[in-house]
Amino acid sequence: MTGNQEPSTTALLWHGDHLALLDQRLLPEREVWLTYTDADGVASAIRDMVVRGAPAIGICAAYGLVLAARQAARYDDWRALIQSAARTLAGARPTAVNLSWALQRLQSVLNDADDAREAIRRLDLEARAIHDEDVAANHRMAEHALSIMDHGPFAVLTHCNTGSLATGGYGTALGVIRHLWHQGRLTRVYADETRPWLQGSRLTAWELQQEGIPVTLNTDGAAAQILRRGDVRWVIVGADRITANGDVANKIGTYGLAVLARHHGVRVMVVAPSSTVDRSLSSGDDIPIEERGADELRMIQGLPIAPDGISVYNPVFDVTPADLVDVIVTEQGVTWLQTPSSL
Amino acid sequence: MTGNQEPSTTALLWHGDHLALLDQRLLPEREVWLTYTDADGVASAIRDMVVRGAPAIGICAAYGLVLAARQAARYDDWRALIQSAARTLAGARPTAVNLSWALQRLQSVLNDADDAREAIRRLDLEARAIHDEDVAANHRMAEHALSIMDHGPFAVLTHCNTGSLATGGYGTALGVIRHLWHQGRLTRVYADETRPWLQGSRLTAWELQQEGIPVTLNTDGAAAQILRRGDVRWVIVGADRITANGDVANKIGTYGLAVLARHHGVRVMVVAPSSTVDRSLSSGDDIPIEERGADELRMIQGLPIAPDGISVYNPVFDVTPADLVDVIVTEQGVTWLQTPSSL
Repeated sequence: MTGNQEPSTTALLWHGDHLALLDQRLLPEREVWLTYTDADGVASAIRDMVVRGAPAIGICAAYGLVLAARQAARYDDWRALIQSAARTLAGARPTAVNLSWALQRLQSVLNDADDAREAIRRLDLEARAIHDEDVAANHRMAEHALSIMDHGPFAVLTHCNTGSLATGGYGTALGVIRHLWHQGRLTRVYADETRPWLQGSRLTAWELQQEGIPVTLNTDGAAAQILRRGDVRWVIVGADRITANGDVANKIGTYGLAVLARHHGVRVMVVAPSSTVDRSLSSGDDIPIEERGADELRMIQGLPIAPDGISVYNPVFDVTPADLVDVIVTEQGVTWLQTPSSL
Repeated sequence: MTGNQEPSTTALLWHGDHLALLDQRLLPEREVWLTYTDADGVASAIRDMVVRGAPAIGICAAYGLVLAARQAARYDDWRALIQSAARTLAGARPTAVNLSWALQRLQSVLNDADDAREAIRRLDLEARAIHDEDVAANHRMAEHALSIMDHGPFAVLTHCNTGSLATGGYGTALGVIRHLWHQGRLTRVYADETRPWLQGSRLTAWELQQEGIPVTLNTDGAAAQILRRGDVRWVIVGADRITANGDVANKIGTYGLAVLARHHGVRVMVVAPSSTVDRSLSSGDDIPIEERGADELRMIQGLPIAPDGISVYNPVFDVTPADLVDVIVTEQGVTWLQTPSSL
């Protein structure tokens, strides 16, 4: 991989023979694009969070598999090599289901290919389709979401980053927020900074600032105080996996935020593509929750902020039970989990 | 002020003609002691958070007034100069009431002094008494607190830093936790990192690690997930001001934590010296809540972590209403705000 310049506020660009990723670890200070030419590199980029966000890593995995096919084409066992790369990509991060969903779509296309050249062509088309469909789905989610919200204008609070950087483009929860703003129905976005990775400070605040959407950054611990003030009508978040019963795995802190929202009579909207719904799991208890290294809490930008060797609990996600979620919005429509008038 | 070596895990040392403060902004990476010889310097140290924690800043303000008296003694209007210094010290931080409480104690002693020499002697004695009483009060709070807790052992979760570094020594909430540990009734302390100032990571984790008390550091956003797991029986926190009706101003994030504790059936204990109780205010609505600069969220250790110029909401404290507090413990005893069996 090498660094070069590409337009910003886009997580990924596909060039047919290589994938360019905006290194999200360095934002907002530096905009560095890295180039990947094989599946192992893409899997590392997902694991190391060069790119993150459930929909975005699904799309990247798809393009990663195209790169695997291109490299495998010269070998007799090209099909086995591609399947091996799919396993590597699927294992890069455990919680978001979009990764395995995208790879399954590509693998079913792979079954229809009789030779390697055909496999590359079909995989490339399918990966591009996944990418295009994701952007289109984000716009449909935004339209569905706005159809059930009061006219406003009102403030919203969001957690983590669910914008262009987390998706194929536009965003899930942040897509809804963008759409609210462009319709004149939004006064302000409160953005939780979202420790430990600071997706709120580094990514959401940056995306919104670039578009001139009024955003106020707050610590995660200040969210309760903000919800008490009364101008926030909706907490709007994304999801990494939604189980059959409506439980939602999302960035650590979402569960507590949902409890706080309920306490203050603020509604909770989860916005995610239908590919995030995993009907094979009956409840959130079955979702594998990734834990990341202690240094995410012990250090910031390489500088220590906690004692050496201190024990750390660092789950990346938590599960919000369905009874704390008011509504789930996908590109297919709106599902109320609570009675609309019950709050 | 100058830097030199002093024993650690003590916030302040009084030497009669100067006050030494451990610079808490640099912990746990560096242990640097700063020396102050006048009230303006002490006021700056409080404002800039060289020293923090409601009881500790009260004690520092008292010693600061002794320094003011020593400098004023050579002037005819020594009494007016001391009173002016008291106003400067009282204004250093607005939310904790301990600051004005300590200064009022010293000013009533000042009224009994006929000359400057006598004023210095009396103020010095009173400041030392405030300091000594604070340490003794912490030990009594711990005994009172343990008298109402199940035998255990159990885990607790705390927020911010309320230990030796926040008090004259030993600690309020952290004093209770220390006492639980020494009685064999504690399995583990979960310490919220406490953004933005990271008192949990930098101070609480460090204090507990030095004493070998098992501590696990977590992001503030992970507290809900920890409370759901069931091993935490008490959330134990300090206070910066408690109003007549039992509302509690404490570090930002405490209010949300109390909502989460109630949701999970975990009890909330507030531990503070009786000097933290401000009976002149009927409810928390009347407490002035300090807001600090945007750079506390925009930067860590001088490095940017958010976009330039981004709008920030950075209240230092929030108010937990009395109905979310189970019990308040002072050196005078235990006050249940909820029926002990009601949860």
